[in-house]
Amino acid sequence: MSGTAQIGVTGLAVMGRNLARNFARNGLTVAVHNRTYGRTESLVEEFGGEGAFIAAKSAEEFVASLERPRRLVVMVQAGAATDAVIEEFVPLLEPGDVIIDGGNAHFADTRRRESELRKHWIHFVGVGISGGEEGALRGPSIMPGGPAESYKSLGPLLERIAAKAPDGTPCVSHVGPDGAGHFVKMVHNGIEYADMQLIAEAYHLLRDVAGYSPAKIAETFRGWNAGRLDSYLMEITAEVLAHTDAATGKPFVDVVADRAEQKGTGRWTVQTALDLGVPVSGIAEAVFARSLSGHPALRETAAHLPGPGAEPLDEAAAARFAERVEQALYASKIVSYTQGFHQIRAGGEAYGWKVDLAAVAALWRAGCIIRAAFLDRIRSAYAARPNLVSLLADPGFADEIGAAQGGWRDVVAEAARRGVPTPGFSAALAYYDALRAPRLPAALTQGQRDYFGAHTYRRTDREGSFHTLWGGDRTEVAG
Amino acid sequence: MSGTAQIGVTGLAVMGRNLARNFARNGLTVAVHNRTYGRTESLVEEFGGEGAFIAAKSAEEFVASLERPRRLVVMVQAGAATDAVIEEFVPLLEPGDVIIDGGNAHFADTRRRESELRKHWIHFVGVGISGGEEGALRGPSIMPGGPAESYKSLGPLLERIAAKAPDGTPCVSHVGPDGAGHFVKMVHNGIEYADMQLIAEAYHLLRDVAGYSPAKIAETFRGWNAGRLDSYLMEITAEVLAHTDAATGKPFVDVVADRAEQKGTGRWTVQTALDLGVPVSGIAEAVFARSLSGHPALRETAAHLPGPGAEPLDEAAAARFAERVEQALYASKIVSYTQGFHQIRAGGEAYGWKVDLAAVAALWRAGCIIRAAFLDRIRSAYAARPNLVSLLADPGFADEIGAAQGGWRDVVAEAARRGVPTPGFSAALAYYDALRAPRLPAALTQGQRDYFGAHTYRRTDREGSFHTLWGGDRTEVAG
Repeated sequence: MSGTAQIGVTGLAVMGRNLARNFARNGLTVAVHNRTYGRTESLVEEFGGEGAFIAAKSAEEFVASLERPRRLVVMVQAGAATDAVIEEFVPLLEPGDVIIDGGNAHFADTRRRESELRKHWIHFVGVGISGGEEGALRGPSIMPGGPAESYKSLGPLLERIAAKAPDGTPCVSHVGPDGAGHFVKMVHNGIEYADMQLIAEAYHLLRDVAGYSPAKIAETFRGWNAGRLDSYLMEITAEVLAHTDAATGKPFVDVVADRAEQKGTGRWTVQTALDLGVPVSGIAEAVFARSLSGHPALRETAAHLPGPGAEPLDEAAAARFAERVEQALYASKIVSYTQGFHQIRAGGEAYGWKVDLAAVAALWRAGCIIRAAFLDRIRSAYAARPNLVSLLADPGFADEIGAAQGGWRDVVAEAARRGVPTPGFSAALAYYDALRAPRLPAALTQGQRDYFGAHTYRRTDREGSFHTLWGGDRTEVAG
Repeated sequence: MSGTAQIGVTGLAVMGRNLARNFARNGLTVAVHNRTYGRTESLVEEFGGEGAFIAAKSAEEFVASLERPRRLVVMVQAGAATDAVIEEFVPLLEPGDVIIDGGNAHFADTRRRESELRKHWIHFVGVGISGGEEGALRGPSIMPGGPAESYKSLGPLLERIAAKAPDGTPCVSHVGPDGAGHFVKMVHNGIEYADMQLIAEAYHLLRDVAGYSPAKIAETFRGWNAGRLDSYLMEITAEVLAHTDAATGKPFVDVVADRAEQKGTGRWTVQTALDLGVPVSGIAEAVFARSLSGHPALRETAAHLPGPGAEPLDEAAAARFAERVEQALYASKIVSYTQGFHQIRAGGEAYGWKVDLAAVAALWRAGCIIRAAFLDRIRSAYAARPNLVSLLADPGFADEIGAAQGGWRDVVAEAARRGVPTPGFSAALAYYDALRAPRLPAALTQGQRDYFGAHTYRRTDREGSFHTLWGGDRTEVAG
């Protein structure tokens, strides 16, 4: 017997609930289910008027209420909870049914689950969903992996609830097989960490070097948000900085404890990039900056360490400096995206996914946390040259970063001289300068490795692998 | 029946062979075994005169030749090969016997193996060994983990073959239970990556900013090696830089391909630090610098990107600059070790190891790749204050880094202005400045997270967790 719901959502915490409402608001009949029935009941009570819900009391009832092939979205905590739910549902499903994992799973888990469920002829689709609670309700950016075949039946439903890019295209498309969706979502989050860190550094510099108040920085950021840095994060940062704490009358940012937290996807991004051999220094510095902020004992003992003496800038100098900070922020942002897209390309190659980078950039144009005008430019760059080896190889971005490099260098230099930490700006500049260097000191590193470990080296003028007899007469032998 | 060999070595590639010879040269009777007998035979033929070897043709013969409790050192490739050898030997062993894994195992594998073998009452001791081939033969730095009990029978043998610190102490001691030894060896290697990267940056700056030749840099490094930077790596770097390529007559470093390779322990260090929430930006930048150098396609497309115009320094300015590079190198080195020792402390806490940091520093004073006068100062710092929360909290290191900060800042600023990549120097300076900052922009990060994800924040003036209704009237509620 087949039910009538076109899609089901199990796990009705805030993300699952909002996603279910989004489906219902877009005209789909949605079966809803939760481990405890109370949540299911309250969803239907509170939002039943928004569309057609079928409240299922049990897993069996939930499955029975779905039309075939069944499409059920699992919105539970990543990890063991996801495995438990899958285990519960598999015996109730039939070949051709589709389980959609909309949680923040690690892509390696998604790969494992997809391969296990394939044995049961069940399609497992790991889907990255970005946009937070609001996005889930009003239109997220959706990154589905899994079998291409499953997208035929699933895609049209996802297109209804996805955010729409400025050109009207829904922010959803099949990213690639098995874990590709969760992988791309992971890198999205890594880039989000980097974006946030770069904005934090710009704020820190404007505050401590230019001497601007949070309100003045909010105003500055609003100005930037009207230009090439137009983005959701820039917009909300201005809102946060403009906000006054009601209890104290102080700027809100001054009463918030300066210990940043994290939930793990930034860390995963860096760990995976290390496995892939992709330098993602901007994301790594962002993750480290958060963990550093959360070590109060270390910070306390370091508080007495000396810094440079610093004279504040006068108003005109501050305004000039602020302009250069905009250049540094924009250039560093180009580097972050260069690194993130390099990681996606490398992941795609390592796992055989054939990810279309233009399509990924297109997905991020709306709905997600890093949405920005910038993303459409990245889409264009990869659309024009699908084999673009790096974003820095795109003539447009190369021109822009080249034009920004003067201000960027001044800002990094000034930050070093004035004792303001800019790990993100500095790492991005080092990446830029290393990539364009005609010769890197990696040659010396290889020489050292050959000296102490006989690891051999290659030569610039001949093929082959060589070793110098460092402990002997220092002749060169084949390695 | 018990044999007469006090120790056995199975796996006679260069590291295993040299370790076996080291035992024999120090008066122990050593059973030797290899999967193919040829290697065993040739070892005894070639080096039999150095001491007492028992050449075993089979695993059974090997085990039978060992006195009880048996101590057998496994020197095979980390990973599946190690598991295969363990599986082969376990049925031949008895309760109380000790398997010593001297390979570069991941500490998580060592933890797993230790726990599995405990069920058979066999002691499994993961041992980190540093010093390369030469060290294995003449005295390595040895970092044994595993059960404390096993160290009673194993320690005296290892003390015979270990390197001796300048004060005569053997560079071996029980680091902690199960994977502690391999963990500490992993971090050693991570620090080694950072040390090498920092030296590479100093070289790059002296070459491209000061305009020094490799020979002149070799001379400069020899000078530094006579001061506080006295270390094995500084010594061999000078040797490498002073070397002339016989085939071309050019400086050796100029004919080596500038693509650095890596074997994985640096990567593991960073991945583990990310799990532990420890910022190890210096090590991460070193790993990234190596992987970046190995992406020729990326580098090629970036070669045309613009850099700053740069006037070379005159001789006097170059000499002054070189002095500041020494300060930058030394200060950045202090940061690398601060980060590495933080990671060891955090690992010890996470896994319940109670690692003595003074003892770890003592182990690294000789035999290993990072051996340096510096390590004895770290030993003293932790010996004087075993609960030292960070190396930067030691008054001596704090004074030194404070005195070096002026030059360090100048060098980082100059590198940024002149387009020389110094990811390691910059990351270290950012770490220093972030740790000592009275307020970090992490507060802004928390504000952003609360805005887009309702992740809540803490306040500086009240306990508890809070959320602002950003989409509503912006009042603050309990989070």
